Formats: sequence, C-alpha cells, structure tokens
Amino acid sequence: MYLEKINGPADVKALSEGELECLAAEMRRALLARLSRHGGHFGPNLGMVEATIALHYVFDSPRDKLVFDVSHQCYPHKMLTGRKEAYLDPAHYDDVSGYSNPAESEHDHFTVGHTSTSVSLACGLAKARDLRGEHGNVIAVIGDGSLSGGEALEGLDFAGELRSNLIIVVNDNEMSIAENHGGLYGNLKLLRETEGSAPCNLFRAMGLDYHYVADGNSISALIAAFRQVKDSASPVVVHIHTEKGKGYAPAEADRESWHFSGPFDLETGRPLYAEEAPDFSSVTADYLLSRMEKEPSLVAITSGTPTVLGFTPEKRKRAGRQFVDVGIAEETAVALASGIAAGGGKPVYGVYSSFIQRTYDQLSQDLCINKNPATVVVFAGSVYGMNDVTHLGIYDIPLLSNIPELVYLAPTTKEEYLAMLDWSTGQREHPVAIRLPGGEMISDGRTVTKQFGALNTYEVTARGSRVALLGLGTFYPLAQEAAERVARQTGVRPTVINPYYISGIDAELLEELKRDHQVVATLEDGVLDGGFGEKIARFYGSSEMKVLNFGLKKEFLDRYDVEEVLRANHLTAEQVADDVCALL
Amino acid sequence: MYLEKINGPADVKALSEGELECLAAEMRRALLARLSRHGGHFGPNLGMVEATIALHYVFDSPRDKLVFDVSHQCYPHKMLTGRKEAYLDPAHYDDVSGYSNPAESEHDHFTVGHTSTSVSLACGLAKARDLRGEHGNVIAVIGDGSLSGGEALEGLDFAGELRSNLIIVVNDNEMSIAENHGGLYGNLKLLRETEGSAPCNLFRAMGLDYHYVADGNSISALIAAFRQVKDSASPVVVHIHTEKGKGYAPAEADRESWHFSGPFDLETGRPLYAEEAPDFSSVTADYLLSRMEKEPSLVAITSGTPTVLGFTPEKRKRAGRQFVDVGIAEETAVALASGIAAGGGKPVYGVYSSFIQRTYDQLSQDLCINKNPATVVVFAGSVYGMNDVTHLGIYDIPLLSNIPELVYLAPTTKEEYLAMLDWSTGQREHPVAIRLPGGEMISDGRTVTKQFGALNTYEVTARGSRVALLGLGTFYPLAQEAAERVARQTGVRPTVINPYYISGIDAELLEELKRDHQVVATLEDGVLDGGFGEKIARFYGSSEMKVLNFGLKKEFLDRYDVEEVLRANHLTAEQVADDVCALL
Repeated sequence: MYLEKINGPADVKALSEGELECLAAEMRRALLARLSRHGGHFGPNLGMVEATIALHYVFDSPRDKLVFDVSHQCYPHKMLTGRKEAYLDPAHYDDVSGYSNPAESEHDHFTVGHTSTSVSLACGLAKARDLRGEHGNVIAVIGDGSLSGGEALEGLDFAGELRSNLIIVVNDNEMSIAENHGGLYGNLKLLRETEGSAPCNLFRAMGLDYHYVADGNSISALIAAFRQVKDSASPVVVHIHTEKGKGYAPAEADRESWHFSGPFDLETGRPLYAEEAPDFSSVTADYLLSRMEKEPSLVAITSGTPTVLGFTPEKRKRAGRQFVDVGIAEETAVALASGIAAGGGKPVYGVYSSFIQRTYDQLSQDLCINKNPATVVVFAGSVYGMNDVTHLGIYDIPLLSNIPELVYLAPTTKEEYLAMLDWSTGQREHPVAIRLPGGEMISDGRTVTKQFGALNTYEVTARGSRVALLGLGTFYPLAQEAAERVARQTGVRPTVINPYYISGIDAELLEELKRDHQVVATLEDGVLDGGFGEKIARFYGSSEMKVLNFGLKKEFLDRYDVEEVLRANHLTAEQVADDVCALL
Repeated sequence: MYLEKINGPADVKALSEGELECLAAEMRRALLARLSRHGGHFGPNLGMVEATIALHYVFDSPRDKLVFDVSHQCYPHKMLTGRKEAYLDPAHYDDVSGYSNPAESEHDHFTVGHTSTSVSLACGLAKARDLRGEHGNVIAVIGDGSLSGGEALEGLDFAGELRSNLIIVVNDNEMSIAENHGGLYGNLKLLRETEGSAPCNLFRAMGLDYHYVADGNSISALIAAFRQVKDSASPVVVHIHTEKGKGYAPAEADRESWHFSGPFDLETGRPLYAEEAPDFSSVTADYLLSRMEKEPSLVAITSGTPTVLGFTPEKRKRAGRQFVDVGIAEETAVALASGIAAGGGKPVYGVYSSFIQRTYDQLSQDLCINKNPATVVVFAGSVYGMNDVTHLGIYDIPLLSNIPELVYLAPTTKEEYLAMLDWSTGQREHPVAIRLPGGEMISDGRTVTKQFGALNTYEVTARGSRVALLGLGTFYPLAQEAAERVARQTGVRPTVINPYYISGIDAELLEELKRDHQVVATLEDGVLDGGFGEKIARFYGSSEMKVLNFGLKKEFLDRYDVEEVLRANHLTAEQVADDVCALL
C-alpha cells in the first residue's frame, strides 16, 4: 500500500510516523517473500528496516550521503531509493545486486562488499565536501561485527580527528556472521546495559561524540536520535541496538544460520535445497577434529567465517580452545598463526580467497620473512566461487604465489588436499598455503604418496610427446579432457602434468620437456596476469618451446555466468584443444 | 663499567637498582657514540633505555618472551642480551641488524620491521604456550605511534578476549615519526593527564586490564609496575610515559628529526653528511604546493611518514587542511583517497613501496572496483631502496600491476613523473599509481608531451632491429647502455623502448616488433615473479620471438650490497648485452 508508491526518499518523508510503521511491516513482508524465493542476506536486512526508514526520513539523500559497511544490509535502502520493483516483483529480483552499487542509483556511493571500509570511505566523502566548500551530512552505517576489522578501527580513529560533520551509525545486533569475538564487544555490552551512559566508551576513547538508541527497531526513537545529530559539526556515533532477523521467528532464534539464506519455505523456515554433499569445508573440519584430541597444539583459526572451514557451532564446541575466531580481523589471523607456529603450535587458518586479500603484508612480513610453519587454506579461490564483484576468488594466485618462502599448493582432489594438509601441519620448515579447487569436490579414493617437502616437483600423470598440458588445481580435469581431444583430433598424445606447486617451477622437468615437446600449455583457475602460467612462459622465453597460457583475463567480473566466462577465456576442453592443435 | 660485563639478562638481575641507573647512563653514552658514528634509529632507543632495563630485570627472557613492535627501539634490548659488542666496538657495529632478529639471539622471536604487528604476534606466542601447557610471560612492547594501525587495534581487541597471560607495554612518547594523528591520541593524553585514572580508557574498552606509569624513564617505577603485572592470568596493558630522545638535548627538542639519523657531530648535533640534493620527495611536495592554493580540493595524504612525500613541518603548515596524515593506517589512507575522489576531490597518497603492501584489498576493493580517480605515488620501490629485509621495495610490481583498473606507471625521470602526476590528478577515469625510479633522480629538462590517457602505449625511443630492449623505470638507462654494448659487440642496433605502463601491454607495438626482431628483453627493478617481464613473455609465448626477462630473483634480501645483487641477477649492462648477444 505504501511501499508501491515509494520512488525515492521524498516519498518516505511525506508519510506520517504511523504510516512509517506500516511501511516497515510491508517492507518486511516483501523481504520475506523475496528472500524465501530468491535467497540473500537475511538477518541483517530484517534488522535494519526501521533504521533505514528513519535515515531516509531524517536525512536528505543523495545530498546527504549514506555509506553502508559491507552493504549486505542495504536491501531496505534500495527499496526506498527507486528500486522497489526489485523487491516486489519476482521478474525484477535480479535487477539489483546484493550490495551497494553506484551504477544503479545516485543514492549509492561505492560498490562495497568487504567489511570495515565504510568509515574510512565516508571520511573521504566528508573531506572532499569540506575541501570543496560543499555541505551535507555524511553517514556511515556499520554493523558491530565489522568493528573488529582493522580498517574500521583505523577509520574511527581518523574520524576522531576530523573537525567536521561525520555520522557513524553503529548497528549493534550482537552478532557477526556467527557470534562476535573480541574484547571490544564487552564494551558494547556495557554500553547497551547502561543505556550508553558508561564512562568507559570505545567511541569516546577514539575522540568521537556518542549517542545511544536502546530500541533500534523503534522508528520514532531512531528519528529522534538522527534528528539530534543531523548537521552536527563534529564526528558523532549513534549506537543503535537492533535485533538481527527481526520479524521472522526462526531467524530471531537462530541468528547465525539466518545471516544468509538460500530459498526456503516461509511457513517452516526449512531450506528448499537439498542437504549439502560433503565439501571441502566439512572435510576440513572433520579432518582437523579427528586429530585435535591427540594433538593439543593443533589449532584452527577463522576470521569471522567459521563455517568456511566447516566449523559449525557444534564442531566449534568440540574443538574447544583449539578453535579460534579472531573476529573479522584477517591480518591478525595471519599474525596469530605466525606467532602460534613460532611458539611450537600447529595453526591452520581457513579463509576465503577474497578476504585473504587483506593479508598480503602479514603473509609476507609476519609469516614468510620468519619462515614460520603455519598453514593457510584458501577457499573459493576459483571462477566457480562467489561471483559478486566484491567477492571474487580469482586474484589470489598473483597475490600469494609471488611471496618468497610461501609454498602455495594446488590440490586437485580431496585426497591430495588432505595429504597436503597432513604434510604441512607435520613439518616445520615452510609457511604453506593450500588453494582448494573450485566446483564440485572430486574424491578418487587414491592414496597420495607424494612427498610434498620435495618442493616444486610436478607430476607427470600421462607421458606423451609434442604437447604438454599443465592443469593446475581446478583445471587438472580440464587438461585431461583437452589432452583426449588433442589425441583424437591429431593422433598426438599429449603429456599431462599435475603441477601441484603454484609458487615455483619444476625447472628440471620443464627442461626435460624440451627434448620431445614443442608446445606447453598451462591452465589455471584465476587471472593470468602475475599468475602461474606466466612463470612457465618466462622459463621458456629464450627457447624454441611455444607456450600457451589459459586462464582469466585481468578484469573485474560481476554476477557472471560461469560457462560464459570460461568460454570467453577459451577455458573449455574444445577451445584448449583447438588452440593447441593450431600450434602443432 | 657495568655494560661491558652484561652478557645476558642474568647479569642485569645481579645489579642493584642504583647500579641499574649507572647502567642506563652507560647505555645511553654507548648509543650516542654509536649513533653519531653509524646512524640509526635515535629517539626511540634513547627513550626506551630504562624500560628495557626494567623489563629484563623483572622478566626472565627468553622463557618470558618479549616482542617489540617495529623493533626499531630494540637496541637497548640487544645490548642486554649478549650483543653489547655491536654497540661498544665500532668494528662490531654491523654484527647486528637494526631490528629484532631470531638469527642473532634466542631473546628475539620474530624478524619485524613493519608497525602494529607485535600484539597479534604476541597473542600467537601466548596461544601456543597455552595449548602446549607451557608457562611464562608474553610481553608485547608497542609505541603509541603504532596504535593507529589496524593490525594493532585488531590485536588489542583479540587480546581482550584471551583469558591468559599477555602483557602489553604501551610506550607513549607522544610521537609517531612525526606528530601523532587520530582521535585515540586524545585518550592517551587524557590518561596521561589523569595518571591513568580517567574512566574512559581505550584499553579497558578493549577488555584489557590497565596500569599507568607516569615516569616511564624511572627504573624503579618501571620495575614496580612490571612486578605488579608479572605472571598475571589475564591480558593487561602497562601504559608508560617516556621521553623520546631522552638524554640528548637536540633530540629532546626536535623529536621528529631525531627519529632516525645518519652520522652526526655529537657536540653540535649537526649531520655529518651533505645537505640532500633535490629528490623525488622534495619535488613532490613543491609541485603539489605550487598547485594547492588554486585547487582547494587537491590534497596530499600520508600514513605517518610525511617526509616521504617531502612534507616537512614547514610545508605541512603551508598546505594546511590540504595535507592529511591519517597516522600509521595505510588501509584507511587508500580508502580515504577513494572517498575523496568519489566526492570530487583530487587525492595524492604518497607511500613507501614496503608499506603499500598493507593495502592490496583497499586498492582493489575500495579504489579500483569503484574506478575512483585517486593517485598513489610509490616511493623507494627499487633495489636501490631500503635494504633491511623488512623494508624492501622490490615486490610492489607483482602486487599492484595485476589489480584490474589500476594504471601503474613507471617514469624514468623527474619530468616524466611530474607529467604523469599532472595527468593523473587532472583526469577522472582511472585510479593511478606511479612508481618512482630508484637511485639518483634523473632530470633531463625534457618537455614531456606524452598523453598518458592513451593507456598502454609504450614509446620507442630508438628504432633498431633484431633486438628490442624494454627498460622499465629505474632500468631505462640500463637498457640504453646495454643497447650500446650490443651495437658495439655485434653491429646490431637494438630498438630501445620506454614502456611507461607496468600494468598493461602495448599489444600493437609488441605485435609489430615480430616483423624484424627476434629477441625482446625486459628490464625491471623488482622481483620477476608476477612482474612486468612475464606479461611480455606470455604475449610472445606462442610465437617465434625469444624473450629474456631481467629482474630480481624471488627471495628475501637483507642488508645487501646493491652492486652484488645486481650482478647476481645479471642486471649490469655487460651481462644484459652478453645474454642478449648469446641469442642472436
């Protein structure tokens, strides 16, 4: 009734506070309908309905600029800023992305997807405004879970010195994806318990003014609070206490599971998709747990995403102090792993490819210069991984494989992975990272006897001649398929190689191939620039060997169709075979 | 008298508190003597003499583990842990590095050089201790300047949840390299002014216990405080107020200049080296200042190292609000730059190659996905840069050149640099980074007319045949020299190319070279893996063209001789020419 008529914030401002309550209910219903069919970030958005309404009621976007942290909680914001169709009409569900997007609307200022960036980005907007003599409020909206991230804490500290308007809305729903971790959450709790009056106040300690809103799901309370800070001349925090998942009982009860959901049955809350097959996450947790009791210094580490390495609440409990969640703080996770290794422990840090991007310096400095034997397991490092532009997993090979001393491994199967994990956590010479292959997990039951400590020794799995195909990780099966095709098309039987080592070349083998091969092709599941294949190309640069590198073009992709992207990059068996045959 | 007999902490413990005072004076004298001859980090070490004595007096290193942040303040620690000769005898000055070093002593646990890592590393040692059922104190020593860094704030937050022994000594000398920046420094000031009793306390807000020592240069006060926290069962901060540069009047008076010093005259404090010639730092500041008055939205950004882009205290004053120091917080610097660009401003962030390692994710996510037109200037990205293992500048090409949308430029002269800076700050399409060449700044007075907006267009500066030499950045003159030698040795006159663009290839030119060239050689001032030359090798992989890539081997170097390293990597004109000729 109201929502259908909202085309922008002006339409929100035209409503009475009573009507705003109805609008909130409608928005919640629309969200539930859409999420149950389409999936998406659930809890965060339900919890932010009232706050978003109040923000647009009080502030004047886009003159006043809203910057959402992560921005997974921006669905209500999009609904109120001209994109309601995408939340009301199934035919338009995919008109919008799951994150803020300047290409969609002038009310969005950045494409965002990683945590903890909003305050610093907002400070930039504020600084530009001041330098240009412009006016308007700049408002960052950040969840309590994001506060543990270094960039956010830096941002609060920097904001504390800004002598102009900056409003930081801290949405405290007492949750990260899972439970919060870190001492500062004790302070948030104290602030909640004292209605914001406790003198010990993290935000004031950062030099910021501070307000507290006990009922962050009360539109009137929020409107009053936002009015109070509007146009303030110095930075101020508005700490609002909301309920994650509010309005849907199953989500209120199990906030971790309902952070993000696939399609589900609205009546029962049960997922509409089949129970997941064992995957690398569950395999990792089960493997580590099977060893933990006998090895008290074997410890699994996460930075706010426990289920990426398969540690459900139940498994976390079983692991006890051998499972550590540092909160959303990837840099500290790597440094912690280095310190644990230095102290004689066996740390295993599991993290998404996209988020390991935060840790280059810690991997290089804290870990690798010290050659501390920690293990990092990289999940979703693949074109088959997450496909939002801010969660791509296709850049970690250039990022990690060029750090000295880091042994970066690419298993192709579950068995190879576990053998690598076994080796890595049993040795003390090298920092190791393992890049899990994308797509369905392949398990072939093979007993892997390879000695991974003999670094940079590739494995010839099929000895042929004239052409050698190096299939790294995910694309090892692709190399095998392409080899079959080449054989069928030309009668030439290619050599097939499983390189295993992303970070180094097997010079002896590559040299040997010169004897009876004219073409070497490399296949990698990531961007080619700075990647694996280029190392091979450099090796053969001054020789007669022809080298073909298959992988992804250096670009940002967004909400892509995997098959289309593979085809565009010649990453099908047919195309690989054709390109190879053309050189024979 | 006392110092000469200190071979380890046991010898410190054997002294009376009165004798410790004498020891402190001797240590200070030794430091002054050494620093005046040899140079090194000055203020930080003079300020930490008493605290270091007290730490070794109370704690039992190496069973109790000390982790120094940055570790530039560890000279007193080294003096007391078996390395006094390196501080007493000029013949032994270079026996030790300028940072903590496990290879030198069991009392050092990590090789460290970047800020803000100590707390997280120490948490790792503590966690390993607990998991292994071991005992002992773990003590992180971190300066107030390092607190603004995200990893340190994450570390404090993580420590706040650790339910076991961890001691964090916060050495508050009211300084970073330059003045501190950030709201939290207001809290440190409040704590100093209230002798630690103010209820609003950043550390307590992070969940940590807290003690304050007003006179952090009083050995007895420090001993009392350290005794109080020794063996505590939960994490605690000991906030000590020290005087940077204590014991040398010039350093006490001008704490910024005396953070690090080269050799100087002990009597007068005057440097023993000549006034520095104009370099890229002074050129940058002067250029930006010349524009700032007319362009109020042109803003220079630093993350705690203002003089890297030439902004001395006097020039900072002139720039006013158009110079922003975010404190040691590189990630926020990049996000801030992105936000300023998004708001219509013209941000220029100047940073050392080594420290930009902290910002991969912010460059990729905050800046490049948003294609915001910020400019990043990378200093000391060169084998001629800093040569401590923790401050190397040879990894930024693989790090930056493989991020989509980032235009990474390599000027060879001052004139090219200023032309690039001019272009970059005048356009609004691309995020740009500029990698300053190493060694002496070359200025040829040339008017640069190149249109840098025509991306990835290399420049043929000498048209020859058969061999093409692509000299990137620092090594453009090397390419010219090698070309001369090739011509003399073989009569073949090579083509010489200034590529300018590290992040992209000039496919048209490279294709054209196939007509009358058989060899292409690339020369880059950085590690080859993931670098510029490999892109060229990949381009020509399936062709007849032979490619030779010259650059550095992928390894960590420490306190190296540049000429030796160049020679080992065939980066002399003679070797380049010989290797090229061998292929002709």
